[in-house]
Amino acid sequence: MELRSRKISSKIIGVDINIENQAKALSLNLVDEIGNIQEACKISDLVIVAVPIDKSENVLITVLDVIPDKTVVIDVGSTKKNICQIAEKHPKRSQFVAAHPIAGTEFSGPESAHLGLFEDKVNIVCDPEKSDTAMLDKMIQLFSHLGMNTIYMNAGDHDKHIAYVSHISHISSFALGLTVLEIEKNRENIYQMAGGGFESTVRLAKSSADMWTPIFVHNADNILVALQAYIDNLNKFKRVIEGRKDEEINSLIIQANKISKALKET
Amino acid sequence: MELRSRKISSKIIGVDINIENQAKALSLNLVDEIGNIQEACKISDLVIVAVPIDKSENVLITVLDVIPDKTVVIDVGSTKKNICQIAEKHPKRSQFVAAHPIAGTEFSGPESAHLGLFEDKVNIVCDPEKSDTAMLDKMIQLFSHLGMNTIYMNAGDHDKHIAYVSHISHISSFALGLTVLEIEKNRENIYQMAGGGFESTVRLAKSSADMWTPIFVHNADNILVALQAYIDNLNKFKRVIEGRKDEEINSLIIQANKISKALKET
Repeated sequence: MELRSRKISSKIIGVDINIENQAKALSLNLVDEIGNIQEACKISDLVIVAVPIDKSENVLITVLDVIPDKTVVIDVGSTKKNICQIAEKHPKRSQFVAAHPIAGTEFSGPESAHLGLFEDKVNIVCDPEKSDTAMLDKMIQLFSHLGMNTIYMNAGDHDKHIAYVSHISHISSFALGLTVLEIEKNRENIYQMAGGGFESTVRLAKSSADMWTPIFVHNADNILVALQAYIDNLNKFKRVIEGRKDEEINSLIIQANKISKALKET
Repeated sequence: MELRSRKISSKIIGVDINIENQAKALSLNLVDEIGNIQEACKISDLVIVAVPIDKSENVLITVLDVIPDKTVVIDVGSTKKNICQIAEKHPKRSQFVAAHPIAGTEFSGPESAHLGLFEDKVNIVCDPEKSDTAMLDKMIQLFSHLGMNTIYMNAGDHDKHIAYVSHISHISSFALGLTVLEIEKNRENIYQMAGGGFESTVRLAKSSADMWTPIFVHNADNILVALQAYIDNLNKFKRVIEGRKDEEINSLIIQANKISKALKET
Protein backbone atom coordinates (compact mmCIF):
# COMPACT_ATOMS: atom_id res chain seq x y z
CA MET A 1 0.00 0.00 0.00
CA GLU A 2 2.82 2.40 0.87
CA LEU A 3 4.90 1.38 -2.17
CA ARG A 4 1.92 1.94 -4.42
CA SER A 5 0.86 5.26 -2.88
CA ARG A 6 4.40 6.58 -3.30
CA LYS A 7 4.59 5.23 -6.83
CA ILE A 8 7.74 3.28 -5.95
CA SER A 9 6.46 0.08 -7.57
CA SER A 10 5.27 -0.26 -11.15
CA LYS A 11 3.51 -3.55 -10.48
CA ILE A 12 2.74 -5.58 -7.36
CA ILE A 13 2.09 -9.32 -7.51
CA GLY A 14 0.48 -10.88 -4.44
CA VAL A 15 1.21 -14.49 -3.49
CA ASP A 16 -0.93 -16.19 -0.82
CA ILE A 17 -2.07 -19.76 -0.23
CA ASN A 18 -5.39 -18.48 1.11
CA ILE A 19 -7.93 -17.88 -1.67
CA GLU A 20 -10.04 -15.49 0.40
CA ASN A 21 -7.00 -13.35 1.15
CA GLN A 22 -6.11 -13.35 -2.56
CA ALA A 23 -9.57 -12.03 -3.41
CA LYS A 24 -9.49 -9.42 -0.63
CA ALA A 25 -6.04 -8.16 -1.63
CA LEU A 26 -7.27 -7.71 -5.19
CA SER A 27 -10.54 -6.05 -4.24
CA LEU A 28 -8.77 -3.70 -1.82
CA ASN A 29 -6.41 -2.85 -4.66
CA LEU A 30 -3.39 -3.83 -2.57
CA VAL A 31 -2.00 -5.89 -5.48
CA ASP A 32 -2.27 -5.70 -9.26
CA GLU A 33 -2.55 -9.43 -9.66
CA ILE A 34 -2.23 -12.74 -7.86
CA GLY A 35 0.67 -14.90 -8.94
CA ASN A 36 2.47 -18.15 -8.45
CA ILE A 37 5.50 -17.84 -6.17
CA GLN A 38 8.12 -19.11 -8.66
CA GLU A 39 6.80 -17.15 -11.64
CA ALA A 40 6.37 -13.97 -9.59
CA CYS A 41 9.88 -14.15 -8.14
CA LYS A 42 11.49 -14.61 -11.53
CA ILE A 43 10.17 -11.25 -12.78
CA SER A 44 10.38 -9.13 -9.61
CA ASP A 45 13.00 -6.61 -8.51
CA LEU A 46 11.97 -6.94 -4.90
CA VAL A 47 10.39 -9.86 -3.02
CA ILE A 48 8.93 -9.22 0.45
CA VAL A 49 8.42 -12.36 2.56
CA ALA A 50 5.70 -11.65 5.11
CA VAL A 51 4.38 -14.97 6.42
CA PRO A 52 4.28 -16.66 9.86
CA ILE A 53 7.86 -17.45 10.87
CA ASP A 54 7.42 -21.24 10.83
CA LYS A 55 6.67 -20.86 7.12
CA SER A 56 9.16 -18.14 6.23
CA GLU A 57 12.22 -20.40 6.16
CA ASN A 58 10.83 -22.62 3.41
CA VAL A 59 9.39 -19.66 1.57
CA LEU A 60 12.75 -17.88 1.68
CA ILE A 61 14.58 -20.90 0.23
CA THR A 62 11.98 -21.24 -2.52
CA VAL A 63 12.41 -17.56 -3.36
CA LEU A 64 16.22 -17.55 -3.26
CA ASP A 65 16.29 -20.63 -5.47
CA VAL A 66 14.49 -18.91 -8.34
CA ILE A 67 15.34 -15.19 -8.24
CA PRO A 68 17.60 -13.60 -10.86
CA ASP A 69 20.84 -11.95 -9.76
CA LYS A 70 19.39 -8.43 -9.62
CA THR A 71 16.52 -9.29 -7.25
CA VAL A 72 16.53 -8.44 -3.53
CA VAL A 73 14.56 -10.43 -0.95
CA ILE A 74 13.58 -9.05 2.44
CA ASP A 75 11.73 -10.84 5.18
CA VAL A 76 9.91 -8.97 7.92
CA GLY A 77 9.36 -11.64 10.59
CA SER A 78 9.57 -11.08 14.34
CA THR A 79 12.47 -13.50 14.98
CA LYS A 80 15.66 -13.41 12.95
CA LYS A 81 18.11 -16.05 14.21
CA ASN A 82 16.57 -19.09 12.53
CA ILE A 83 15.94 -17.46 9.19
CA CYS A 84 19.46 -16.00 9.10
CA GLN A 85 20.91 -19.44 9.86
CA ILE A 86 18.88 -20.97 7.05
CA ALA A 87 19.86 -18.22 4.62
CA GLU A 88 23.55 -18.54 5.61
CA LYS A 89 23.92 -21.77 3.67
CA HIS A 90 22.31 -20.45 0.49
CA PRO A 91 24.56 -19.34 -2.40
CA LYS A 92 22.37 -16.25 -2.85
CA ARG A 93 22.61 -15.14 0.82
CA SER A 94 23.91 -11.72 -0.23
CA GLN A 95 20.63 -10.98 -2.04
CA PHE A 96 18.74 -11.36 1.27
CA VAL A 97 18.11 -8.55 3.77
CA ALA A 98 16.82 -9.75 7.17
CA ALA A 99 14.54 -6.97 8.41
CA HIS A 100 12.11 -6.39 11.25
CA PRO A 101 10.06 -3.23 10.92
CA ILE A 102 8.74 -2.62 14.46
CA ALA A 103 5.29 -1.78 13.21
CA GLY A 104 2.00 -3.59 13.24
CA THR A 105 -1.30 -3.88 15.02
CA GLU A 106 -3.22 -6.68 16.71
CA PHE A 107 -5.01 -7.29 13.42
CA SER A 108 -3.89 -9.36 10.45
CA GLY A 109 -4.93 -10.09 6.88
CA PRO A 110 -5.34 -7.77 3.87
CA GLU A 111 -8.08 -5.68 5.52
CA SER A 112 -5.67 -4.61 8.27
CA ALA A 113 -3.39 -2.81 5.84
CA HIS A 114 -3.38 0.95 6.33
CA LEU A 115 -1.26 3.86 5.19
CA GLY A 116 0.99 5.48 7.77
CA LEU A 117 1.85 2.26 9.63
CA PHE A 118 5.60 2.73 9.16
CA GLU A 119 5.76 6.47 9.82
CA ASP A 120 8.43 7.24 12.46
CA LYS A 121 8.90 3.58 13.29
CA VAL A 122 12.18 1.75 13.85
CA ASN A 123 13.33 -0.93 11.43
CA ILE A 124 15.94 -3.48 12.53
CA VAL A 125 18.22 -5.07 9.96
CA CYS A 126 20.10 -8.14 11.18
CA ASP A 127 23.54 -9.34 10.11
CA PRO A 128 23.82 -6.51 7.53
CA GLU A 129 27.41 -7.50 6.67
CA LYS A 130 26.04 -10.61 4.99
CA SER A 131 23.94 -8.65 2.50
CA ASP A 132 25.28 -7.17 -0.72
CA THR A 133 26.24 -3.56 0.08
CA ALA A 134 24.45 -1.98 -2.86
CA MET A 135 21.29 -4.01 -2.26
CA LEU A 136 21.36 -3.25 1.45
CA ASP A 137 21.74 0.48 0.77
CA LYS A 138 18.81 0.39 -1.62
CA MET A 139 16.63 -1.32 0.99
CA ILE A 140 17.63 1.12 3.74
CA GLN A 141 16.65 3.93 1.38
CA LEU A 142 13.35 2.20 0.75
CA PHE A 143 12.61 1.85 4.48
CA SER A 144 13.58 5.47 4.89
CA HIS A 145 11.14 6.50 2.12
CA LEU A 146 8.39 4.80 4.11
CA GLY A 147 9.32 6.86 7.18
CA MET A 148 11.43 4.33 9.07
CA ASN A 149 14.80 4.69 10.75
CA THR A 150 16.93 1.53 10.40
CA ILE A 151 19.22 0.23 13.16
CA TYR A 152 21.49 -2.82 13.00
CA MET A 153 21.91 -5.86 15.21
CA ASN A 154 23.16 -9.39 14.97
CA ALA A 155 20.30 -11.86 14.69
CA GLY A 156 20.89 -13.50 18.08
CA ASP A 157 20.87 -10.17 19.93
CA HIS A 158 17.75 -9.11 18.06
CA ASP A 159 15.85 -12.20 19.19
CA LYS A 160 16.93 -11.75 22.81
CA HIS A 161 16.06 -8.07 23.07
CA ILE A 162 12.82 -8.32 21.11
CA ALA A 163 11.71 -11.11 23.48
CA TYR A 164 12.48 -8.86 26.45
CA VAL A 165 10.74 -5.80 25.07
CA SER A 166 8.02 -7.04 22.73
CA HIS A 167 7.23 -10.76 22.84
CA ILE A 168 6.69 -10.78 26.63
CA SER A 169 3.99 -8.12 26.37
CA HIS A 170 2.01 -10.38 24.05
CA ILE A 171 2.05 -13.20 26.61
CA SER A 172 1.13 -10.73 29.34
CA SER A 173 -1.86 -9.64 27.29
CA PHE A 174 -2.99 -13.10 26.12
CA ALA A 175 -2.90 -14.32 29.74
CA LEU A 176 -4.85 -11.27 30.90
CA GLY A 177 -7.54 -11.92 28.29
CA LEU A 178 -7.75 -15.58 29.33
CA THR A 179 -7.96 -14.65 33.02
CA VAL A 180 -10.72 -12.08 32.68
CA LEU A 181 -12.77 -14.44 30.49
CA GLU A 182 -12.35 -17.15 33.13
CA ILE A 183 -13.12 -15.22 36.30
CA GLU A 184 -15.66 -12.72 35.00
CA LYS A 185 -18.52 -15.00 34.08
CA ASN A 186 -20.82 -12.07 33.32
CA ARG A 187 -19.79 -10.94 29.82
CA GLU A 188 -21.83 -7.76 30.20
CA ASN A 189 -19.59 -6.70 33.10
CA ILE A 190 -16.53 -6.99 30.87
CA TYR A 191 -18.10 -4.76 28.28
CA GLN A 192 -19.44 -2.23 30.78
CA MET A 193 -16.71 -2.12 33.41
CA ALA A 194 -13.70 -2.31 31.12
CA GLY A 195 -12.23 1.16 30.95
CA GLY A 196 -9.68 2.39 28.47
CA GLY A 197 -7.03 0.96 30.79
CA PHE A 198 -8.15 -2.63 30.44
CA GLU A 199 -8.70 -2.22 26.71
CA SER A 200 -5.17 -0.95 26.27
CA THR A 201 -3.60 -3.72 28.36
CA VAL A 202 -5.57 -6.48 26.65
CA ARG A 203 -5.31 -5.11 23.10
CA LEU A 204 -2.57 -7.53 22.03
CA ALA A 205 -4.70 -10.50 23.19
CA LYS A 206 -6.56 -10.10 19.89
CA SER A 207 -3.41 -11.03 17.94
CA SER A 208 -3.29 -13.94 15.51
CA ALA A 209 -2.54 -17.42 16.88
CA ASP A 210 -1.03 -18.47 13.54
CA MET A 211 1.45 -15.63 13.72
CA TRP A 212 2.33 -15.81 17.42
CA THR A 213 2.50 -19.56 18.11
CA PRO A 214 5.66 -20.08 16.01
CA ILE A 215 7.25 -16.92 17.48
CA PHE A 216 6.81 -18.31 21.01
CA VAL A 217 8.25 -21.67 19.91
CA HIS A 218 11.19 -20.32 17.89
CA ASN A 219 12.17 -17.77 20.49
CA ALA A 220 11.27 -19.93 23.50
CA ASP A 221 14.63 -19.68 25.30
CA ASN A 222 14.65 -15.87 25.36
CA ILE A 223 10.94 -15.58 26.05
CA LEU A 224 11.15 -17.98 29.01
CA VAL A 225 13.75 -15.76 30.70
CA ALA A 226 11.43 -12.76 30.40
CA LEU A 227 8.35 -14.76 31.36
CA GLN A 228 9.95 -16.15 34.53
CA ALA A 229 11.06 -12.64 35.55
CA TYR A 230 7.51 -11.42 34.91
CA ILE A 231 5.93 -14.20 37.01
CA ASP A 232 8.46 -13.43 39.78
CA ASN A 233 7.39 -9.78 39.78
CA LEU A 234 3.71 -10.72 39.90
CA ASN A 235 4.43 -12.98 42.86
CA LYS A 236 6.19 -10.02 44.49
CA PHE A 237 3.01 -7.97 44.04
CA LYS A 238 0.98 -10.87 45.37
CA ARG A 239 3.06 -11.11 48.56
CA VAL A 240 2.93 -7.39 49.36
CA ILE A 241 -0.80 -7.18 48.61
CA GLU A 242 -1.48 -10.26 50.77
CA GLY A 243 0.45 -8.56 53.58
CA ARG A 244 -1.28 -5.20 52.93
CA LYS A 245 2.21 -3.70 52.93
CA ASP A 246 1.47 -0.14 51.75
CA GLU A 247 5.03 1.05 51.66
CA GLU A 248 6.32 -1.90 49.67
CA ILE A 249 3.43 -1.72 47.19
CA ASN A 250 4.11 2.00 46.81
CA SER A 251 7.79 1.45 46.13
CA LEU A 252 7.14 -1.28 43.54
CA ILE A 253 4.79 1.09 41.69
CA ILE A 254 7.28 3.96 41.82
CA GLN A 255 9.91 1.60 40.43
CA ALA A 256 7.54 0.54 37.61
CA ASN A 257 6.75 4.21 36.83
CA LYS A 258 10.32 4.56 35.54
CA ILE A 259 9.26 2.79 32.34
CA SER A 260 7.78 6.13 31.38
CA LYS A 261 11.22 7.70 31.08
CA ALA A 262 12.65 4.67 29.27
CA LEU A 263 9.99 5.02 26.57
CA LYS A 264 10.98 8.62 25.84
CA GLU A 265 13.84 9.58 23.56
CA THR A 266 16.80 10.75 25.64
CA MET B 1 -13.67 21.40 33.33
CA GLU B 2 -16.76 19.74 31.86
CA LEU B 3 -19.11 21.46 34.33
CA ARG B 4 -17.59 24.79 33.47
CA SER B 5 -17.59 24.31 29.69
CA ARG B 6 -21.27 23.35 29.81
CA LYS B 7 -22.04 26.28 32.10
CA ILE B 8 -23.58 23.91 34.65
CA SER B 9 -21.70 25.47 37.55
CA SER B 10 -21.77 29.15 38.48
CA LYS B 11 -18.69 28.89 40.65
CA ILE B 12 -16.12 26.16 41.34
CA ILE B 13 -14.06 26.09 44.53
CA GLY B 14 -11.01 23.82 44.53
CA VAL B 15 -9.80 22.21 47.75
CA ASP B 16 -6.39 20.49 47.80
CA ILE B 17 -3.72 19.99 50.45
CA ASN B 18 -1.00 20.36 47.81
CA ILE B 19 -0.06 24.00 47.23
CA GLU B 20 1.41 23.32 43.78
CA ASN B 21 -1.79 21.66 42.66
CA GLN B 22 -3.79 24.60 44.02
CA ALA B 23 -1.72 26.99 41.92
CA LYS B 24 -1.93 24.79 38.81
CA ALA B 25 -5.72 24.41 39.11
CA LEU B 26 -6.06 28.19 39.31
CA SER B 27 -3.68 28.93 36.46
CA LEU B 28 -5.33 26.29 34.25
CA ASN B 29 -8.65 27.96 35.08
CA LEU B 30 -10.07 24.68 36.38
CA VAL B 31 -11.37 26.44 39.51
CA ASP B 32 -12.51 29.95 40.33
CA GLU B 33 -10.84 29.98 43.71
CA ILE B 34 -9.11 27.80 46.27
CA GLY B 35 -11.00 27.27 49.49
CA ASN B 36 -10.99 25.63 52.87
CA ILE B 37 -12.91 22.35 52.95
CA GLN B 38 -15.42 23.30 55.66
CA GLU B 39 -16.14 26.78 54.31
CA ALA B 40 -16.41 25.53 50.73
CA CYS B 41 -18.81 22.73 51.63
CA LYS B 42 -21.12 25.05 53.55
CA ILE B 43 -21.84 27.13 50.45
CA SER B 44 -21.84 24.46 47.72
CA ASP B 45 -24.74 22.70 46.01
CA LEU B 46 -22.51 19.85 44.93
CA VAL B 47 -19.32 18.48 46.49
CA ILE B 48 -17.19 16.06 44.45
CA VAL B 49 -14.74 14.00 46.50
CA ALA B 50 -11.87 12.93 44.22
CA VAL B 51 -8.92 11.90 46.39
CA PRO B 52 -6.97 8.65 46.91
CA ILE B 53 -9.32 6.13 48.53
CA ASP B 54 -7.37 5.88 51.79
CA LYS B 55 -8.15 9.56 52.27
CA SER B 56 -11.69 9.66 50.89
CA GLU B 57 -13.35 8.14 53.96
CA ASN B 58 -12.16 10.92 56.28
CA VAL B 59 -12.82 13.55 53.67
CA LEU B 60 -16.36 12.24 53.16
CA ILE B 61 -17.12 12.39 56.90
CA THR B 62 -15.70 15.92 57.12
CA VAL B 63 -17.89 16.94 54.19
CA LEU B 64 -21.09 15.25 55.41
CA ASP B 65 -20.59 16.81 58.85
CA VAL B 66 -20.78 20.36 57.51
CA ILE B 67 -23.02 20.35 54.41
CA PRO B 68 -26.46 21.95 54.48
CA ASP B 69 -29.54 19.80 53.77
CA LYS B 70 -29.73 20.76 50.08
CA THR B 71 -26.16 19.73 49.24
CA VAL B 72 -25.27 16.52 47.41
CA VAL B 73 -21.89 14.79 47.80
CA ILE B 74 -20.51 12.33 45.28
CA ASP B 75 -17.26 10.44 45.49
CA VAL B 76 -15.59 8.98 42.43
CA GLY B 77 -13.10 6.49 43.89
CA SER B 78 -12.26 3.10 42.39
CA THR B 79 -13.48 1.00 45.35
CA LYS B 80 -16.89 1.50 46.92
CA LYS B 81 -17.41 -1.01 49.74
CA ASN B 82 -15.39 0.75 52.43
CA ILE B 83 -16.68 4.22 51.71
CA CYS B 84 -20.29 2.99 51.59
CA GLN B 85 -19.82 1.26 54.95
CA ILE B 86 -18.41 4.46 56.47
CA ALA B 87 -21.21 6.56 55.00
CA GLU B 88 -23.84 4.08 56.23
CA LYS B 89 -23.44 5.24 59.80
CA HIS B 90 -23.72 8.94 58.99
CA PRO B 91 -27.07 10.70 59.55
CA LYS B 92 -26.66 12.44 56.18
CA ARG B 93 -26.09 9.18 54.22
CA SER B 94 -28.98 10.02 51.88
CA GLN B 95 -27.14 13.12 50.63
CA PHE B 96 -24.29 10.91 49.41
CA VAL B 97 -24.07 9.29 45.96
CA ALA B 98 -21.34 6.63 45.64
CA ALA B 99 -20.16 6.85 42.04
CA HIS B 100 -17.42 5.38 39.90
CA PRO B 101 -17.14 6.95 36.47
CA ILE B 102 -15.08 4.41 34.48
CA ALA B 103 -12.93 7.10 32.92
CA GLY B 104 -9.39 8.23 33.45
CA THR B 105 -5.89 8.00 32.09
CA GLU B 106 -2.53 6.93 33.46
CA PHE B 107 -1.86 10.57 34.38
CA SER B 108 -2.95 12.49 37.47
CA GLY B 109 -2.96 16.05 38.78
CA PRO B 110 -4.62 19.22 37.43
CA GLU B 111 -2.61 19.17 34.17
CA SER B 112 -4.15 15.81 33.22
CA ALA B 113 -7.66 17.26 33.06
CA HIS B 114 -9.09 17.28 29.54
CA LEU B 115 -12.48 17.77 27.96
CA GLY B 116 -14.17 14.71 26.51
CA LEU B 117 -12.93 12.27 29.16
CA PHE B 118 -16.45 11.17 30.12
CA GLU B 119 -17.93 10.97 26.62
CA ASP B 120 -19.62 7.58 26.07
CA LYS B 121 -18.19 6.16 29.29
CA VAL B 122 -20.01 4.05 31.87
CA ASN B 123 -20.66 5.40 35.35
CA ILE B 124 -21.42 2.99 38.20
CA VAL B 125 -23.55 4.14 41.13
CA CYS B 126 -23.43 1.87 44.16
CA ASP B 127 -26.17 1.22 46.69
CA PRO B 128 -28.49 3.75 44.96
CA GLU B 129 -31.39 2.90 47.30
CA LYS B 130 -29.49 4.59 50.12
CA SER B 131 -29.38 7.96 48.36
CA ASP B 132 -32.22 10.45 48.39
CA THR B 133 -34.27 9.78 45.25
CA ALA B 134 -34.42 13.38 44.06
CA MET B 135 -30.71 13.92 44.67
CA LEU B 136 -29.82 10.67 42.93
CA ASP B 137 -31.96 11.59 39.91
CA LYS B 138 -30.24 14.95 39.69
CA MET B 139 -26.80 13.33 39.75
CA ILE B 140 -27.74 10.75 37.11
CA GLN B 141 -28.88 13.62 34.93
CA LEU B 142 -25.60 15.38 35.57
CA PHE B 143 -23.57 12.30 34.57
CA SER B 144 -25.77 11.97 31.52
CA HIS B 145 -25.08 15.62 30.58
CA LEU B 146 -21.38 14.77 30.62
CA GLY B 147 -21.98 11.90 28.21
CA MET B 148 -22.07 8.99 30.66
CA ASN B 149 -24.48 6.10 30.98
CA THR B 150 -25.09 5.12 34.62
CA ILE B 151 -25.52 1.51 35.77
CA TYR B 152 -26.23 0.31 39.34
CA MET B 153 -24.55 -2.25 41.58
CA ASN B 154 -24.21 -3.01 45.22
CA ALA B 155 -20.87 -1.85 46.56
CA GLY B 156 -19.52 -5.34 47.28
CA ASP B 157 -20.28 -6.58 43.76
CA HIS B 158 -18.74 -3.45 42.30
CA ASP B 159 -15.45 -4.04 44.12
CA LYS B 160 -15.32 -7.68 43.04
CA HIS B 161 -16.06 -7.09 39.38
CA ILE B 162 -13.89 -4.00 39.07
CA ALA B 163 -10.98 -6.01 40.54
CA TYR B 164 -11.57 -8.72 37.93
CA VAL B 165 -11.87 -6.35 34.98
CA SER B 166 -9.84 -3.27 35.85
CA HIS B 167 -7.56 -3.51 38.90
CA ILE B 168 -5.85 -6.67 37.66
CA SER B 169 -4.77 -4.96 34.44
CA HIS B 170 -2.93 -2.33 36.46
CA ILE B 171 -0.92 -5.00 38.28
CA SER B 172 -0.27 -6.74 34.98
CA SER B 173 1.10 -3.51 33.59
CA PHE B 174 3.11 -2.44 36.65
CA ALA B 175 4.77 -5.88 36.75
CA LEU B 176 5.52 -5.70 33.02
CA GLY B 177 7.20 -2.31 33.45
CA LEU B 178 9.27 -3.63 36.36
CA THR B 179 10.28 -6.72 34.40
CA VAL B 180 11.41 -4.94 31.27
CA LEU B 181 13.40 -2.41 33.32
CA GLU B 182 15.08 -5.30 35.14
CA ILE B 183 15.98 -7.58 32.25
CA GLU B 184 16.62 -5.03 29.50
CA LYS B 185 19.71 -3.30 30.84
CA ASN B 186 20.15 -1.28 27.66
CA ARG B 187 17.64 1.58 27.99
CA GLU B 188 18.13 2.50 24.33
CA ASN B 189 16.78 -0.91 23.33
CA ILE B 190 13.58 -0.23 25.26
CA TYR B 191 13.10 3.05 23.45
CA GLN B 192 13.99 1.69 20.03
CA MET B 193 12.52 -1.81 20.09
CA ALA B 194 9.30 -1.04 21.92
CA GLY B 195 6.55 -1.06 19.34
CA GLY B 196 3.05 0.25 19.81
CA GLY B 197 2.19 -3.13 21.33
CA PHE B 198 4.53 -2.81 24.27
CA GLU B 199 3.58 0.83 24.79
CA SER B 200 -0.07 -0.10 24.95
CA THR B 201 0.45 -2.99 27.37
CA VAL B 202 2.71 -0.99 29.68
CA ARG B 203 0.73 2.27 29.56
CA LEU B 204 -0.93 1.79 32.94
CA ALA B 205 2.49 1.25 34.57
CA LYS B 206 2.79 5.04 34.53
CA SER B 207 -0.12 5.35 36.97
CA SER B 208 0.18 7.11 40.32
CA ALA B 209 1.47 5.14 43.32
CA ASP B 210 -0.50 7.36 45.72
CA MET B 211 -3.71 6.51 43.93
CA TRP B 212 -3.13 2.80 43.34
CA THR B 213 -1.47 1.63 46.57
CA PRO B 214 -4.63 2.11 48.69
CA ILE B 215 -6.80 0.53 45.96
CA PHE B 216 -4.66 -2.64 46.06
CA VAL B 217 -4.83 -2.67 49.89
CA HIS B 218 -8.56 -1.92 50.22
CA ASN B 219 -9.57 -4.36 47.52
CA ALA B 220 -6.90 -6.96 48.31
CA ASP B 221 -9.22 -9.96 48.68
CA ASN B 222 -10.83 -9.53 45.27
CA ILE B 223 -7.59 -8.56 43.57
CA LEU B 224 -5.76 -11.60 44.94
CA VAL B 225 -8.32 -13.94 43.33
CA ALA B 226 -7.72 -12.31 39.96
CA LEU B 227 -3.96 -12.12 40.45
CA GLN B 228 -3.67 -15.81 41.32
CA ALA B 229 -5.73 -16.75 38.26
CA TYR B 230 -3.47 -14.53 36.15
CA ILE B 231 -0.27 -16.11 37.52
CA ASP B 232 -1.78 -19.55 36.89
CA ASN B 233 -2.43 -18.64 33.26
CA LEU B 234 1.10 -17.31 32.83
CA ASN B 235 2.44 -20.56 34.26
CA LYS B 236 0.26 -22.40 31.76
CA PHE B 237 1.91 -20.39 28.96
CA LYS B 238 5.31 -21.10 30.49
CA ARG B 239 4.73 -24.87 30.49
CA VAL B 240 3.52 -25.06 26.90
CA ILE B 241 6.33 -22.80 25.66
CA GLU B 242 8.93 -24.83 27.57
CA GLY B 243 7.52 -27.96 25.93
CA ARG B 244 7.36 -26.22 22.50
CA LYS B 245 3.78 -27.49 22.32
CA ASP B 246 2.50 -25.67 19.21
CA GLU B 247 -1.03 -26.93 19.36
CA GLU B 248 -1.53 -26.07 23.01
CA ILE B 249 -0.02 -22.60 22.58
CA ASN B 250 -2.27 -22.09 19.59
CA SER B 251 -5.37 -23.09 21.50
CA LEU B 252 -4.54 -20.82 24.49
CA ILE B 253 -4.18 -17.88 22.09
CA ILE B 254 -7.45 -18.68 20.30
CA GLN B 255 -9.13 -18.83 23.69
CA ALA B 256 -7.64 -15.44 24.65
CA ASN B 257 -8.78 -13.93 21.31
CA LYS B 258 -12.36 -14.23 22.56
CA ILE B 259 -11.79 -11.15 24.72
CA SER B 260 -12.27 -9.23 21.48
CA LYS B 261 -15.92 -10.20 21.30
CA ALA B 262 -16.47 -9.55 25.02
CA LEU B 263 -15.28 -5.97 24.58
CA LYS B 264 -17.86 -5.28 21.88
CA GLU B 265 -21.43 -4.31 22.61
CA THR B 266 -23.70 -7.29 21.99
